[in-house]
Amino acid sequence: MTQTKLLSDMSKPLLQQVKIKDAFWGYYINLIREVVVPYQWEALNDRVENAERSGAVNNFKIAAGLAEGEFYGMVFQDSDVAKWLEAVAYLLHVQPDPKLEQIADEMIDIVALAQHDDGYLNTYYTLKEPNGRWSNLEECHELYCAGHMIEAGVAYYRATGKRKLLDVVSRFADYIDTVFGSEAGRLQGYDGHQEIELALVKLYEVTENERYLLLSQYFLSERGQSPSFYAEQLEQRGGQRHFYPDHTSIDLAYSQSHKPVVEQDTAIGHAVRLVYMLTGMIDVANQTGDRELLKAAKRLWDNIVHRQMYITGGIGSMVHGEAFSYDYDLPNDTVYAETCASIGLIFAAQRMLMIEPNAEYGDVLERALYNTVVAGMSRDGKHFFYVNPLEVNPCSCGGVNHNYDHVKPVRQEWFGCACCPPNVARLISSLGEYIYTVQEDIIYQHLYIGGEANLVVGKIPVQLQSNSNYPWDGEINLTVTPQHACVFTLALRIPQWCKQFTIVVNGHEIKQDQFTIVAGYAQITRQWQQGDRVTLTLDMPVMRMHSHPHVRGNIGKVAIQRGPFIYCLEQVDNGAHLHEILLPQDAELTPRYDEQLLGGVTVIEGKGYRIKEGSWSGELYSDEALPEHTETHVKFIPYYAWANRGENEMSVWVREK
Amino acid sequence: MTQTKLLSDMSKPLLQQVKIKDAFWGYYINLIREVVVPYQWEALNDRVENAERSGAVNNFKIAAGLAEGEFYGMVFQDSDVAKWLEAVAYLLHVQPDPKLEQIADEMIDIVALAQHDDGYLNTYYTLKEPNGRWSNLEECHELYCAGHMIEAGVAYYRATGKRKLLDVVSRFADYIDTVFGSEAGRLQGYDGHQEIELALVKLYEVTENERYLLLSQYFLSERGQSPSFYAEQLEQRGGQRHFYPDHTSIDLAYSQSHKPVVEQDTAIGHAVRLVYMLTGMIDVANQTGDRELLKAAKRLWDNIVHRQMYITGGIGSMVHGEAFSYDYDLPNDTVYAETCASIGLIFAAQRMLMIEPNAEYGDVLERALYNTVVAGMSRDGKHFFYVNPLEVNPCSCGGVNHNYDHVKPVRQEWFGCACCPPNVARLISSLGEYIYTVQEDIIYQHLYIGGEANLVVGKIPVQLQSNSNYPWDGEINLTVTPQHACVFTLALRIPQWCKQFTIVVNGHEIKQDQFTIVAGYAQITRQWQQGDRVTLTLDMPVMRMHSHPHVRGNIGKVAIQRGPFIYCLEQVDNGAHLHEILLPQDAELTPRYDEQLLGGVTVIEGKGYRIKEGSWSGELYSDEALPEHTETHVKFIPYYAWANRGENEMSVWVREK
Repeated sequence: MTQTKLLSDMSKPLLQQVKIKDAFWGYYINLIREVVVPYQWEALNDRVENAERSGAVNNFKIAAGLAEGEFYGMVFQDSDVAKWLEAVAYLLHVQPDPKLEQIADEMIDIVALAQHDDGYLNTYYTLKEPNGRWSNLEECHELYCAGHMIEAGVAYYRATGKRKLLDVVSRFADYIDTVFGSEAGRLQGYDGHQEIELALVKLYEVTENERYLLLSQYFLSERGQSPSFYAEQLEQRGGQRHFYPDHTSIDLAYSQSHKPVVEQDTAIGHAVRLVYMLTGMIDVANQTGDRELLKAAKRLWDNIVHRQMYITGGIGSMVHGEAFSYDYDLPNDTVYAETCASIGLIFAAQRMLMIEPNAEYGDVLERALYNTVVAGMSRDGKHFFYVNPLEVNPCSCGGVNHNYDHVKPVRQEWFGCACCPPNVARLISSLGEYIYTVQEDIIYQHLYIGGEANLVVGKIPVQLQSNSNYPWDGEINLTVTPQHACVFTLALRIPQWCKQFTIVVNGHEIKQDQFTIVAGYAQITRQWQQGDRVTLTLDMPVMRMHSHPHVRGNIGKVAIQRGPFIYCLEQVDNGAHLHEILLPQDAELTPRYDEQLLGGVTVIEGKGYRIKEGSWSGELYSDEALPEHTETHVKFIPYYAWANRGENEMSVWVREK
Repeated sequence: MTQTKLLSDMSKPLLQQVKIKDAFWGYYINLIREVVVPYQWEALNDRVENAERSGAVNNFKIAAGLAEGEFYGMVFQDSDVAKWLEAVAYLLHVQPDPKLEQIADEMIDIVALAQHDDGYLNTYYTLKEPNGRWSNLEECHELYCAGHMIEAGVAYYRATGKRKLLDVVSRFADYIDTVFGSEAGRLQGYDGHQEIELALVKLYEVTENERYLLLSQYFLSERGQSPSFYAEQLEQRGGQRHFYPDHTSIDLAYSQSHKPVVEQDTAIGHAVRLVYMLTGMIDVANQTGDRELLKAAKRLWDNIVHRQMYITGGIGSMVHGEAFSYDYDLPNDTVYAETCASIGLIFAAQRMLMIEPNAEYGDVLERALYNTVVAGMSRDGKHFFYVNPLEVNPCSCGGVNHNYDHVKPVRQEWFGCACCPPNVARLISSLGEYIYTVQEDIIYQHLYIGGEANLVVGKIPVQLQSNSNYPWDGEINLTVTPQHACVFTLALRIPQWCKQFTIVVNGHEIKQDQFTIVAGYAQITRQWQQGDRVTLTLDMPVMRMHSHPHVRGNIGKVAIQRGPFIYCLEQVDNGAHLHEILLPQDAELTPRYDEQLLGGVTVIEGKGYRIKEGSWSGELYSDEALPEHTETHVKFIPYYAWANRGENEMSVWVREK
């Protein structure tokens, strides 16, 4: 076998090394622990009234021989249990919870019982199509479900040291490794929904079994080769389709199978699949030293973040295929911008930060995290957005204009296809993995989330305490406590939105000759003493953002940003017909923290104009004089907090005068 | 039976009374005669290379026992033959053409042979479901096809005096009259696609058999009653659906069957169905004196033209259901605006003009006719639009952004579902029926289409000659030649777009005391002598149109209109990224007739601004200064003429500064 070679020697701390104590994220992490994970467990067990039935736990029980009945749900229903277990693992990794651990252990026992003797594990095929294993990789998410269970097994092992689920998924991966491959008699194929690629790299990292890395590499290199594996399987099935019996042709680009992965340069097809693939590509490139693969990954990344990403970090411009469309095509109202897709983009950004500490990756990570991902969940932790529009008119929703059938003006309860809620849970519960990376003698801080991190720099343990009112305020106070005085570098990400900043070390502002800016990070190299204090003050003005003129829907419009937050107008604050509001270019916009509002948010207020009631004749079309405008008070709230005060209009982009 | 009572004593001339000699319309009428009708005959006979197979003529041949094979096409394929025959009838009514008449006669012979002994006529059911007659009125267009054949039979009889097809459809209608009705043992139902209602009134007009009028009245009054007739039929069919097997629920509003017709006040559902129903409602109200029905029709009309109509006279805001959505929801790019729907709107306007000569009906008729309907067909008569968008970016089309899959950036050849092309043909070939109406001693001229009309006013034959360069020029020259000098009124529509006009009679301008304006018509009452000359000069400035501020997509934008024409920008004249163009409010806009362009059009030119190339950093989002604008020449062409110079961007609404 090939000798693997790391592209980079960066490392990220384990979850138990980072204790988050942060006013903003503390609320959400607590919500995940206290509400979301328990609520989701109830949902997975079909015990939430008015929520769509899940069947996910029961499917495992039936497959384990512990219950009777029939498989229920989507072909990928197993993954909901896996993602829940993964989130539980992260919670346990940070803070013991014997009761929760017992529930998880019992679930893992059931999962283990559902595994076949040969290692195979999938309740859909076990119960519904026992002879159909691997017959429809294009549609049936078998390796996708495997990937999620592998991620859960790895996370649970890391969190608890318990090997049971890790052994289950290792046996499953060993079995998969006998099924797929270029050797004669094996399936030369790959899954329609990427996920196993990144999961196998995690399994490799924890087991050090290189077969898993090679299998991941195999799936990536096989993808998109001609002739099409999916087409061959479709023919073998006599043309039978799982989801769309009438579609006789396969849309290869939908699952990024239209050309070899290393030849892809434009994000196309299902957005979640693409970013999961991208994450796997970066992981494999990093572990194998494959620079060609990394180059392809960076091309796709560039295309997404410079051509196809919403200002909220949302991706996927259209509901059909939950997919990318083309460069600069970013409609605000018919958008898809699935919560899961932004989570996948965060995965990719995190992996890139492991190879190249460039602030752009941190910027995109922050953008997606503080906007689309947090928007995905209500303040009560029980309602979720799958679709994250930038402009909503509730009149259009609910089947009135069918172009908006996918857009919900308020967050929904658990869905039958419940991908997003557990994805939010596993991301936020593992947030400690996204804040820092360490490379030789450099500690990188990518996100300004308060807490305490116990890191190791050049073999010296260093405690880093971070305290701030971020993201409402740009002053970040750090305390650096190495085990003993030593020289290393602290690299602090200067966000793209920050044009001015100061760094004060132990009460003295340090100047440009005492730090350097490298790839967007302020690097402070010095001999650190125990208890050294660093204050990074990021100037956090209200910013008027515009978009590339090729973005049709944003032309002549402005979006408001402050710090990492993108803002929006809501009808409840600004009246109906938000499109009739104009924001003058010279309008003074004032931030004001309102602790009563939505759990405490900084609102942004100013004077704008809106069309004066009654100043138009009422004709549908007329050559009469333009309607007059009248001064109005405009009030923006952070985008993530929208739709928490009932059904109403919302708009991120506002007309500018 | 109830005594029928006309609401109005208005009449419209027969087609042979109006000879159109008009530079603008002459081209299209000739195109219908020389190209469209022959081309469509070839298409209906499956003899056009590269066009979708029709099967329509062959279905009749098979049903007639003259050919072997299976039914091909949509369940409503018969209607294509009917609409073609109707268009042929109009052509023959205006100008004899023995060769064409012979082809039509032969087709009619085949149709007659396809009729069952009991009068039933429908090749789909005859060939595919011989035992399924009337089992699926909701979906299967049986009465819709009947209606179109009735219209053809009436038109062919009026044009040629030949009764064969009229007798066929009368027998069919007699049979339908034994199947449907409130009497026990009959079907208490109505068709999913309205059409027979208006057709039966035509049949009544020509045969004077009141059973047909009563049957039409029955279909309208039964529509939308509870319990749902469709639901009962669906149950009787064991839940079987024709089009969407998976849809178990019926969308009653889609076919305006959600409530009784007289209670409907908002246009909802499939746009063509609604306007066909509306036309039938007006017809029945007119013939029966039913003022409640007329009131309901006027409510629907008002809702459409004041809340749900595009500036081009297009209707139907969304592709899903080819349907209306809700008030002021008029997106320019994802629009449907089917050509057939605007044709139906013209039918309704024409019928309203038969009851109430109000210029609003003429204005809407003119708007739809000169914009959406003419746009529906290419200059070569062989390519057609079904969907008539007001903004097109070809990059989005062809499956790239699936929200635009229905939008074609260039006109298409014959479609499998070929409703629009024959509808354009039958409207334009019968245009002579839309220009004038006569009421006692008033001749109303609704449209300014040149030619010669032989009318009868108060029993006096009057010849009216009309000569102009309209719609490019607002000077209309009329010559009035009564059989002998007599007093009557000439009522000339003053279009809504015209703010100033002059009327000159025999060289002398007449003043406000010599004519009166009644409901938008300038009424000139005098003793007319043979050869009296009237010159109506309509001021035809370039107009800057705005829309009601509630129309989101048009806010801050202007559309250009001159005379009846709405204008648009095309990429071929103005470069790509049309949304980057700004038209200053004070821009001077100059019309210029270009005889070389698109068969001769008046273009409108002026100075505008566009975003300067390279004045934006290239970032997707940035708080940098707004990009600079640079002066640019803008050139508008009439909307109807777009997409005749290859695939390119187009926009009706332009940003205004």
